[in-house]
Amino acid sequence: MKKIKIGLAGLGTVGKGVYEILKKDANIINLRANAEFEIVAVSARSNKEFVDKNIKFYSNPVDLAKDHEVEVVVEVMGGLGVAKELVELAIKNGKKVVTANKALLAECGDEIVELLKNNKGHIAFEASTAGANPVIKTFKESFTSSEITEFYAILNGTCNFILSKMTSEGSDFADTLKEAQKLGYAEVDPTLDIKGFDTAHKLAILSSISSNSIPAFKKLHIEGVDEIDAQDIQLADELGYKIKLLAIYKKLENSSQQSVYPALVKKTEKIAQVDGPFNAVLVNTTNASWNMSIGRGAGGLTTGSAVVADLIDIARNRCTSLFGVEEEKLDSFEILDISQRVGRYFIKVVVNKNLVQKNNLIEVILGNKIKVNQAAFIDKDDKIICGFLTEKNKEQEIVNLLQNLDSNLVETKKLIRVEETKF
Amino acid sequence: MKKIKIGLAGLGTVGKGVYEILKKDANIINLRANAEFEIVAVSARSNKEFVDKNIKFYSNPVDLAKDHEVEVVVEVMGGLGVAKELVELAIKNGKKVVTANKALLAECGDEIVELLKNNKGHIAFEASTAGANPVIKTFKESFTSSEITEFYAILNGTCNFILSKMTSEGSDFADTLKEAQKLGYAEVDPTLDIKGFDTAHKLAILSSISSNSIPAFKKLHIEGVDEIDAQDIQLADELGYKIKLLAIYKKLENSSQQSVYPALVKKTEKIAQVDGPFNAVLVNTTNASWNMSIGRGAGGLTTGSAVVADLIDIARNRCTSLFGVEEEKLDSFEILDISQRVGRYFIKVVVNKNLVQKNNLIEVILGNKIKVNQAAFIDKDDKIICGFLTEKNKEQEIVNLLQNLDSNLVETKKLIRVEETKF
Repeated sequence: MKKIKIGLAGLGTVGKGVYEILKKDANIINLRANAEFEIVAVSARSNKEFVDKNIKFYSNPVDLAKDHEVEVVVEVMGGLGVAKELVELAIKNGKKVVTANKALLAECGDEIVELLKNNKGHIAFEASTAGANPVIKTFKESFTSSEITEFYAILNGTCNFILSKMTSEGSDFADTLKEAQKLGYAEVDPTLDIKGFDTAHKLAILSSISSNSIPAFKKLHIEGVDEIDAQDIQLADELGYKIKLLAIYKKLENSSQQSVYPALVKKTEKIAQVDGPFNAVLVNTTNASWNMSIGRGAGGLTTGSAVVADLIDIARNRCTSLFGVEEEKLDSFEILDISQRVGRYFIKVVVNKNLVQKNNLIEVILGNKIKVNQAAFIDKDDKIICGFLTEKNKEQEIVNLLQNLDSNLVETKKLIRVEETKF
Repeated sequence: MKKIKIGLAGLGTVGKGVYEILKKDANIINLRANAEFEIVAVSARSNKEFVDKNIKFYSNPVDLAKDHEVEVVVEVMGGLGVAKELVELAIKNGKKVVTANKALLAECGDEIVELLKNNKGHIAFEASTAGANPVIKTFKESFTSSEITEFYAILNGTCNFILSKMTSEGSDFADTLKEAQKLGYAEVDPTLDIKGFDTAHKLAILSSISSNSIPAFKKLHIEGVDEIDAQDIQLADELGYKIKLLAIYKKLENSSQQSVYPALVKKTEKIAQVDGPFNAVLVNTTNASWNMSIGRGAGGLTTGSAVVADLIDIARNRCTSLFGVEEEKLDSFEILDISQRVGRYFIKVVVNKNLVQKNNLIEVILGNKIKVNQAAFIDKDDKIICGFLTEKNKEQEIVNLLQNLDSNLVETKKLIRVEETKF
């Protein structure tokens, strides 16, 4: 049986998961790969006590790319520094790469594409996006016979956990974040997650495959969940909606929308029902209509199993081009400025109770330029907190409206977008 | 650009879908396949007026396998007669095959495996199972790094449509079937669907991939939805459950359960919430935990798009062995007799109101050998229709109990299994 020699960079949660799976599930993996995998070298900053003593250790991960014995580099360190250097040198040295590094692909996709144009090589990255949901494979190899017209995805378990908890418990953001940290669902520094960047990395990758173009991370509109408060969720709930942090791709006439933001989604829609630390990808294609996959988005064995599935693909010579088509054929794709989005909006305004009468509240506050379909109110001390759901409008018009609200009357104002997935 | 010449057998719903997609979406397909597909010959009993006149026509589909120009045979006729002959000859003649024929793979899997042992060849069959859900690919190529420990699947849109309608409208089976036929969701002869055979074909295929063994269609326990009545659904509803026709695979110690039956599933479980003509596959693996995919199960473009995705895989040389591993390595797998199943049961009995007192009904009817956790009742004329939910028991014990019920008291009796998916 063919032997495939691996250099493993990173022994954190995912690296340890890969190490464990290759050890405990060797029988089934060998059968499905028709090959044996052997970790011949590792590199890590710490946490290596579980690694077999016969395995070479490099303090500098880049040395894995120089080791002639290593055929496949598994990069599960993350980040754009040494990890990038390692991946680049590995490819230049004729090695294959399996990585979970979403930042690398999303932010440096153009460089990676150039690298692969100039060097025969293969980079697999199922583990970068949506954990146990095999979305990279299905986007690259299954939804190929159709145009992907739109997708809506929950791609960050931390944010989904926090929003779900805030919804079920009526709690506020800061407390819920702390609880998520205590439970291990959020990092000590949660910025990448709660500000939407992690979701945006994954969005850039999936959009790239969907549109056969180079990832456009820098052009994405990105908002996180840290501005969502208990009242937003309460008002949304009363209107029949949940708030979800969504990665959104929509193919438009000559461009595409690619954005990350918390959105109101009707409770009856399937993606609104995905709560807790789960990921979900809902995709619509011209020929196959809607498809949705749901699964755990993180965890050592979960993400590790996606890495090992990529290794099995490599053993079987199932090596699809980075973003689904030849690197030379990737295009760049116009991305809509968010101000041009057309859709429905949830407008939250806080007004002083003594200055308004409740019977014509909507007109008094918003005027009559914008049609409101539904409204909910929270009475609190001397304030009324209003939630208005508008008809379809261009975002710029809503922004203008909010800017011009009577500042004597309106104390705070905020917009949250509404998404309708029709599934 | 490489050209791949196709012989298309069958121009029904799926065949027409394939024909249309290859025509209207040629640009995107060529890009993703790095190849052009050309249908050079077709065969069909009728309905060929939309086919280009330059394309060869064979009245006998088997002739497609003899045509030297044809490189890939697309078999979307179905059935075990001529379709089987065509597939076999195509492989013997060195052609590749894409098929939607679940019966062929499930019932003649052993023969097809022998055929592929003796001839280098490739048969792709994404379109055979779950329509727009790419379950064949994900089972063969994504869930490879784990043991698949169990799956629960809704694989027949007709049955799911009927059960959903019966649930939402309180209607009975016969009327709902008629309505489904009128709407095109059920065939004129619905036997294959409603008796569970179509689901069982797909179960045999997915179980085979899950367990790396030869499909064992003949050994499956198969029940359909035609014995489910409005009262079963009403009682289940009152107990907090829905009734779903499930394909079930569970890996056990030295065997597996592989069965198709209508089962009570808690309303709060995700698979219970998949209503209408949709398919869903919920799979649990040792390393990646739960994953669920939902999508349309049928339709010309839907199923056609799965066929075309297989063609693109062939163009890209992504040709995985039939059931995921080398044919020589497929095992046969012990299958549990359904009488040995251990699980919970829903017992429905109809008793004459005048012969029992409601306060100790359960004990009077069932004795005290079996523990009942929940009960619901329908009062109807002089009858009481009882629904009992038991604790975990071996099925044989429940069957024995039902056989020994007091026939003076109990007019009719029935068991439906309860499934708990924990997702």
